[in-house]
Amino acid sequence: MSDERDRLARVALNRLAEPGETRLASLVHELGAVRVHEHLSAERDLEGVLTDVAARLEGIDPARDLERAERCGLRFLVPGDEEWPSRLDDLHAVPPIQARGGGPIGLWVRGPLHLGEVAASVAVVGSRSATSYGGAVARDLAAEVARAGLAVVSGAAYGIDQAAHRGGLAAGGTSVAVLACGADKVYPSGHRNLIEHLSAHGAVVSEAAPGCAPTRVRFLARNRLIAALTRGTVVVEAAARSGALNTANWAERLNRHLMGVPGPVTAPQSEGVHQLVRLGAATLVTGGADVLEVVGAAGQHLVVPPRGRTRSRDHLTIRQQQVLDAVPVTRGAPTDSVARAAGIGLVEVRRTLEALGRHGLVDRDGDGWLLSDHARD
Amino acid sequence: MSDERDRLARVALNRLAEPGETRLASLVHELGAVRVHEHLSAERDLEGVLTDVAARLEGIDPARDLERAERCGLRFLVPGDEEWPSRLDDLHAVPPIQARGGGPIGLWVRGPLHLGEVAASVAVVGSRSATSYGGAVARDLAAEVARAGLAVVSGAAYGIDQAAHRGGLAAGGTSVAVLACGADKVYPSGHRNLIEHLSAHGAVVSEAAPGCAPTRVRFLARNRLIAALTRGTVVVEAAARSGALNTANWAERLNRHLMGVPGPVTAPQSEGVHQLVRLGAATLVTGGADVLEVVGAAGQHLVVPPRGRTRSRDHLTIRQQQVLDAVPVTRGAPTDSVARAAGIGLVEVRRTLEALGRHGLVDRDGDGWLLSDHARD
Repeated sequence: MSDERDRLARVALNRLAEPGETRLASLVHELGAVRVHEHLSAERDLEGVLTDVAARLEGIDPARDLERAERCGLRFLVPGDEEWPSRLDDLHAVPPIQARGGGPIGLWVRGPLHLGEVAASVAVVGSRSATSYGGAVARDLAAEVARAGLAVVSGAAYGIDQAAHRGGLAAGGTSVAVLACGADKVYPSGHRNLIEHLSAHGAVVSEAAPGCAPTRVRFLARNRLIAALTRGTVVVEAAARSGALNTANWAERLNRHLMGVPGPVTAPQSEGVHQLVRLGAATLVTGGADVLEVVGAAGQHLVVPPRGRTRSRDHLTIRQQQVLDAVPVTRGAPTDSVARAAGIGLVEVRRTLEALGRHGLVDRDGDGWLLSDHARD
Repeated sequence: MSDERDRLARVALNRLAEPGETRLASLVHELGAVRVHEHLSAERDLEGVLTDVAARLEGIDPARDLERAERCGLRFLVPGDEEWPSRLDDLHAVPPIQARGGGPIGLWVRGPLHLGEVAASVAVVGSRSATSYGGAVARDLAAEVARAGLAVVSGAAYGIDQAAHRGGLAAGGTSVAVLACGADKVYPSGHRNLIEHLSAHGAVVSEAAPGCAPTRVRFLARNRLIAALTRGTVVVEAAARSGALNTANWAERLNRHLMGVPGPVTAPQSEGVHQLVRLGAATLVTGGADVLEVVGAAGQHLVVPPRGRTRSRDHLTIRQQQVLDAVPVTRGAPTDSVARAAGIGLVEVRRTLEALGRHGLVDRDGDGWLLSDHARD
């Protein structure tokens, strides 16, 4: 079966290459995995000896790899599979960052979640060394996103990643962790419970072959998957050189929505986010409702703009407002002085002031009238 | 002298009207103050009796008003005066807000500062009930703006206004307070020292006639002057219905730069600012340097983007980086395994790993190599 040959060729190439090897990705995308695999396997150097790559391919047994992975509960998705997240194909159209890029040759997945059925998702990423503020915001934001039926996608690191998954899961939502190590591995080891929980109820995804350890290159390649898999990426806290900014960069290139949660300008953890917003790369969001408005279908999640509490002032007649506006803030003014300032007759002003007094908007001050504390601001 | 007649007519009309009476402002702008004054003074009702406005004008003695004000150290500026801030004329082109608008008929000023010589200034405004965070940021931001030679313009309220003036003054800068009450008055009374200091070293400005108490209408009219006088307005903290948002609205209409300082999304005091930034009305700024970049002449104050600390990683050769990128984060990997992952020969990798070890970027882990804490992130 040609499908099966393609899958096995991809397993082998995936094992051979580092995640995000752009040149290999584009060769496979153009020529197909079987042809690239055949070509590389037959490659010899000038003296007729197998090249290093060919020798390594010879040592790879994709059928056994696949079987072994399946015993660990892993499955290998390739383009064309019903479960293949077609959003990933956008990666082929985008130039690489630090020589990493292109669409993945395949994807290792662990967990019951059918990736093809995740209609919409949002990435929530940020600093590993998050502040308690950042953690709380990520948790609440992810919970609100999850309650709206969107999946939460993140890494599995300490800090924001963890807080986002916890928030999403607590709200009964769907969570996907994209790892830099093999999908069968646990990193960081302190997150064994979290990762096992996700692989039992959501999905743990990796481009790295099973058994692979996390390396810097694999983190960078992983970030592009987080951005590509989702409708938008929210950066909750990120210092000036945080890895989360790499994910943000991918989201931007991929034309995904990029959002940033602000924080105190005095916190280094918010510096990177503020820069993204300042330069217009990211939209400022203050919580889940803002995120839903940005990524949602038009008009689906419109934010009610914060209006502050309604004030008694809002229910006044125009006349009453005119009188109220003429009442001083500091020292009481007599009725005739208020009338002059308001440009309204004395009798009407006297009556209006008394009504305003009953509403607690003006106070008596000796002979005069004074704006009440309640009516100020 | 026609100039003198114009000035006296404006003093009278200024005393007659509330600040920001749009209709009067545009009449004066079109017909001149003398003609409007004459017309209003002669106005009679159907029975030939002086109208209310005419009667009130009759009771106003502008020459005496002016003399008395001068004894209090006030001067009255009118359009055409050398000291008249021509930026204010932009107000004639902008529609009113809540029936307030138009250019001022005149401006009462106290203090040695020549308003016409303030080449550039920035408004720093915000909540009266500022947080200690907001106060500190306003103070530092104003100080940096002042050190760059720009005047700081604000109100004289508690909270952000006060912090901005204090910061600007402490940096040896020029400060202008625009009041909602007469320029001879002190409001709030707790700010007597601040206002006296400004009137001794900078300028205290008001559109309201001397002796006028602060009212809500006068605050609203005042806000448009703050926005109009300056190149840009920075909102440091503003709750959802803060008066500072009225100033922001004016800055937007007047095509001035509008900037907002973010804060925690959990603080109601930052809600209004976040909304301005979210909707794209305001540019996010994190401090004085960002403000200078926004309002400065092009290229005059370019911000050095925050880059985080330089890391030893930055000085590595490409080969060293390739090897470093292949070193695992969790458990040590033997040299040959690193060499395989890096796709580089064993001898070179061994040499490189040892060099990286001397730089503290990798650690020994039993037989293998592990990324050092120092090299992570």
